[in-house]
Amino acid sequence: MGGRAYGTIEVRVDGGVLTAVFGAPPMNLIGPEVVRDLVGLIEELEAPGGPRVVVFESADADFFFPHVDMTKVAEYTAEAAKAGGPGDASLGMLFRRLSLLPVVTVAKLRGRARGAGSEFLLACDLRFASREKAVLGQPEVGIGTPPGAGAIQHLTRLLGRGRALEVLLSSADFDADLAERYGWVNRALPDAELDGFVAALATRLAGFPRDALIAAKAAVNALTLPAAAEVRADAALFQQLVRADGVQHRTAALFRGGFQTRGPLELDLGAALADLPPVD
Amino acid sequence: MGGRAYGTIEVRVDGGVLTAVFGAPPMNLIGPEVVRDLVGLIEELEAPGGPRVVVFESADADFFFPHVDMTKVAEYTAEAAKAGGPGDASLGMLFRRLSLLPVVTVAKLRGRARGAGSEFLLACDLRFASREKAVLGQPEVGIGTPPGAGAIQHLTRLLGRGRALEVLLSSADFDADLAERYGWVNRALPDAELDGFVAALATRLAGFPRDALIAAKAAVNALTLPAAAEVRADAALFQQLVRADGVQHRTAALFRGGFQTRGPLELDLGAALADLPPVD
Amino acid sequence: MGGRAYGTIEVRVDGGVLTAVFGAPPMNLIGPEVVRDLVGLIEELEAPGGPRVVVFESADADFFFPHVDMTKVAEYTAEAAKAGGPGDASLGMLFRRLSLLPVVTVAKLRGRARGAGSEFLLACDLRFASREKAVLGQPEVGIGTPPGAGAIQHLTRLLGRGRALEVLLSSADFDADLAERYGWVNRALPDAELDGFVAALATRLAGFPRDALIAAKAAVNALTLPAAAEVRADAALFQQLVRADGVQHRTAALFRGGFQTRGPLELDLGAALADLPPVD
Repeated sequence: MGGRAYGTIEVRVDGGVLTAVFGAPPMNLIGPEVVRDLVGLIEELEAPGGPRVVVFESADADFFFPHVDMTKVAEYTAEAAKAGGPGDASLGMLFRRLSLLPVVTVAKLRGRARGAGSEFLLACDLRFASREKAVLGQPEVGIGTPPGAGAIQHLTRLLGRGRALEVLLSSADFDADLAERYGWVNRALPDAELDGFVAALATRLAGFPRDALIAAKAAVNALTLPAAAEVRADAALFQQLVRADGVQHRTAALFRGGFQTRGPLELDLGAALADLPPVD
Repeated sequence: MGGRAYGTIEVRVDGGVLTAVFGAPPMNLIGPEVVRDLVGLIEELEAPGGPRVVVFESADADFFFPHVDMTKVAEYTAEAAKAGGPGDASLGMLFRRLSLLPVVTVAKLRGRARGAGSEFLLACDLRFASREKAVLGQPEVGIGTPPGAGAIQHLTRLLGRGRALEVLLSSADFDADLAERYGWVNRALPDAELDGFVAALATRLAGFPRDALIAAKAAVNALTLPAAAEVRADAALFQQLVRADGVQHRTAALFRGGFQTRGPLELDLGAALADLPPVD
Repeated sequence: MGGRAYGTIEVRVDGGVLTAVFGAPPMNLIGPEVVRDLVGLIEELEAPGGPRVVVFESADADFFFPHVDMTKVAEYTAEAAKAGGPGDASLGMLFRRLSLLPVVTVAKLRGRARGAGSEFLLACDLRFASREKAVLGQPEVGIGTPPGAGAIQHLTRLLGRGRALEVLLSSADFDADLAERYGWVNRALPDAELDGFVAALATRLAGFPRDALIAAKAAVNALTLPAAAEVRADAALFQQLVRADGVQHRTAALFRGGFQTRGPLELDLGAALADLPPVD
């Protein structure tokens, strides 16, 4: 590994563990650059002989991935399309490919992971969150469209009907403890323990036989991953609704309040959605 | 809304939120009147232009719905039949129709919800329970028949094999905290916070775009609701076994102890089942 | 019941409850004798007129079932084969038959249940664990093969993708509280309360109508048990990989450290796996 360099991902390799640190200033929005780099990294990880374990984290203490760049939906979708065939031009299909990697993927969450940021986490194998600093949310319905990149599929399977509906329909922010109780993350850990815990686990996994890791992951994937058709359907609905007038109006109102800039609205997006004008 | 009046359901509309309060003295048994009113309300809610959100609660502090009226199984089943075709004469199919409503349904639980009362809750989208005052149970197996109106389908999907079997086979009462740990309800909340929490959530949801709410709910439903054939099979088994001698004997013993009257046996039905004569 | 005597299982019958106590000194390894006795007991329990409820526990305070006897895979598999047809020569198919019994099976866990020991528990209907004394683990991947007797199927369905992957890939030991939070056991109980709780629950269940218990269990099984083909595939992969050089090397290293003897390595097997030489 390390053959490629990425503008928005700092890659370190230590033993069998690759650490990928997301840094796309000013706030780690998922735009064309991030998606292009994710496509590249996923392609690298699909090649034989790479690391057994990847740890994903953010260089930004406040934002893991806040959400997609709503001004560049066409552009980042075009980058995602490079990872697959013509039917696979979506973050959902890219994230599904992430889930299928013959590598153990571990997400270490500090800061906000909302929308496609949460969906990235859900596509990883293991998720550990800082009790004090992690925030998860799927704000899409509050904006005007169901999530399109895996949240419906994964949250429904992980949380069950009632809690998945609560997360998806309320579009609210969830702290790490509640996310743990609901099963959105594996565990919430005290922030001071999170790095050590994940490092020890990654090192442990990297010492285990690769064939067994891959075979066990494949068996679990066979029982849990949505079918490609389900992912494509969610993506198609999102890509259609996100262009509708209603979403445009609500997004415009959010932009007037500071959407996609570092500041109170993005720090507390769950609350900001309740302040939008109600839809008649 | 508000075009119809119901003898056992008080309906209030405030903004986009309809609140339906169940009041069927003396103890909110699910009998023909309650089922007829539920059929009517569900039909109203299926019509376009209604509220985005419905909150269900009970006017009776001790009983949300204690269970069906065991003396009127034929009568309430006949009322349920009016909601569907000839094959759909069951509470299970009525509750499935509730789950399919293009409206977000929120249950606020105080008091006892057992048997079909719990199954009503399980058919709602979101369930919030008073930590001090909520009690849930599926007493059917202790009486002599598996539940017939959705508990097997929903609890198995929500709780998994081990905990669903515990709930169903033990026929025991569960308090709100344990119900939360098992996933039977979304959350247990301190009683003093329950009303405010549900009101704020309902208002929030009612301000969100209807199309997004409906599309997200439909996507989750597609992954989680039992097939009509599964619901019909459970209902048919219940309707057969409930007439068997064994159930009649055990029900008669319960009636001698105060079944279907306000009093210690109904308040503590889970315990009362263990005091019935063991079956050889 | 009681018609047969078992060398490794002490059977007591009290009312409708059969208690089966596993005692296979020196440490309850799952070898040919234990499997032969399990086959016999399961056959007895399949016959009509037996107990409604079975409670499984261990006579060994430290080991419920530590794992299979890795020196006797062929021998115990041959014993398991006697329970089924030629395609069913596996612990996985034997445990699936356990799950299908027309009897309520309750596991009471003290000590270590790892590998096939955990898979035995997962095949039972209800699982209650001592908060202070229970340890669960699936160490197989750390040794070099995915679990073969049901863990992949059951843990994935009970815990969901993220937590099942954590348990299976990390091969770590889990205490009772974490196992409860993840859904691996129904509940963790204080050790001083465990016996009383399970005895009361078993007595309660044994007084309930058998037809209702069996019908409810069958309905839940229909929704949750893996297909025979899934169990056979997992078993076939295990039986293939367990003979591979990698597994043999790692098992040999474990034996040099005290594997399959009472002592620190077996008490703390989860930690010992991290001390094995990493695989290149």
